[in-house]
Amino acid sequence: MTFAATVLTLYPEMFPGPLGISLAGRALEEQRWSLDTVQIRDFATDKHRTVDDTPAGGGAGMVLKADVLGAVIDHAVARHPACPVLVMTPRGKPITQARIRQLAQGPGVTILCGRFEGFDERIFEGRAVEEVSLADIVLSGGEPAALAILDACIRLLPGVMGAPSSGMDESFETGLLEYPQYTRPVEWEGRTIPEVLRSGDHAKISAWRKHRAEEDTRSRRPDLWERHNDVRDQPASGAQRDNED
Amino acid sequence: MTFAATVLTLYPEMFPGPLGISLAGRALEEQRWSLDTVQIRDFATDKHRTVDDTPAGGGAGMVLKADVLGAVIDHAVARHPACPVLVMTPRGKPITQARIRQLAQGPGVTILCGRFEGFDERIFEGRAVEEVSLADIVLSGGEPAALAILDACIRLLPGVMGAPSSGMDESFETGLLEYPQYTRPVEWEGRTIPEVLRSGDHAKISAWRKHRAEEDTRSRRPDLWERHNDVRDQPASGAQRDNED
Repeated sequence: MTFAATVLTLYPEMFPGPLGISLAGRALEEQRWSLDTVQIRDFATDKHRTVDDTPAGGGAGMVLKADVLGAVIDHAVARHPACPVLVMTPRGKPITQARIRQLAQGPGVTILCGRFEGFDERIFEGRAVEEVSLADIVLSGGEPAALAILDACIRLLPGVMGAPSSGMDESFETGLLEYPQYTRPVEWEGRTIPEVLRSGDHAKISAWRKHRAEEDTRSRRPDLWERHNDVRDQPASGAQRDNED
Repeated sequence: MTFAATVLTLYPEMFPGPLGISLAGRALEEQRWSLDTVQIRDFATDKHRTVDDTPAGGGAGMVLKADVLGAVIDHAVARHPACPVLVMTPRGKPITQARIRQLAQGPGVTILCGRFEGFDERIFEGRAVEEVSLADIVLSGGEPAALAILDACIRLLPGVMGAPSSGMDESFETGLLEYPQYTRPVEWEGRTIPEVLRSGDHAKISAWRKHRAEEDTRSRRPDLWERHNDVRDQPASGAQRDNED
């Protein structure tokens, strides 16, 4: 099954962009995912093809119009009724690896990218969309965020990553940061690879990695560490990842 | 002064990508920022141009070699000694708008993008670099993250955004989410723009927006709200944004 990525944007020429290269690019050629870009401006209703207007109540910038947004969302939903619609906005819920994994297991995703000051708020009441934030930074538009979200989904699609086991040890997959990695040369500028990793003792290596993943999460990301322990303390500890969302 | 963006990557063809279009693209043409991509593979030392090797202690994937990374970082630092070096990794410190603003006010930024399982950990001890995470998701490489970080910096450069005041009301700039926005039509599918925003009473509008920014931050992002209040409770409340980092 092909994962259907649809992007609603004023800049369709930004796609596939980096996703046409390397891992995602090969997967696109192999039809493991498809890309459909929709020009928001095509859903304007006046002869000037207006998509935005000044903010009610005053202020700088321009706001994307609810009528135009409603029309473009309706168009995308009609084409891909089973795909959730994500709207990239700093007001949204921070994206998590758990949500990425859910998306990657589904039929695809539709992503609406804004520009200017944002979206007319009524669109979030009038349409079943998910407000999603990539990070606590302000972008010039939703497009770079959409590229990151799609990249994270695509690498999880069946057949895309070389080794299917690769991925489960990674940061966030277990609610922890990944342990540190090393490779040859054994000595570099006087620094050596930790001896345990060169011991060949798999139980010791595994224990060291678990310890470092926990220790580094605790010191670097107390927020993740707290959430990890909250989840672990619950009776149904097998459902860790899904609980996050 | 031109903001010097340098990207160390195995896929230089991913850049400028979306940053060659729209706001960032115009700013690139106007030389408000410059882009220098460096192919990491050019710093391999063997005839096969090897950049990675298997993880010490076993496991899936490949790890970028410390000797190659050291050489490419040294090259970039020699060219742009005043620019901080960011390494995109999920083990890093989550990026904040405060850090973006600092970067945008400086001479530029050098960003090292990984692929595969990540970086030999010794690089973080052997070189003065900043480990930065974009979001709690796993990407196929650092490139989509670098694009987002650069986009966030570029829009803040002098002369890039139309209205210089645009930006200060936005999400995260005050430690709060932005208030909701509305624009014409006044009525859309039976939903009207809140009356206060049509009142012309600037004091009332401002109070409503402040209330909504606080209310939405409290309900949607309790983590931001808590931090906002912690900062506000401190004596030197004028330094809010810089305290975040």
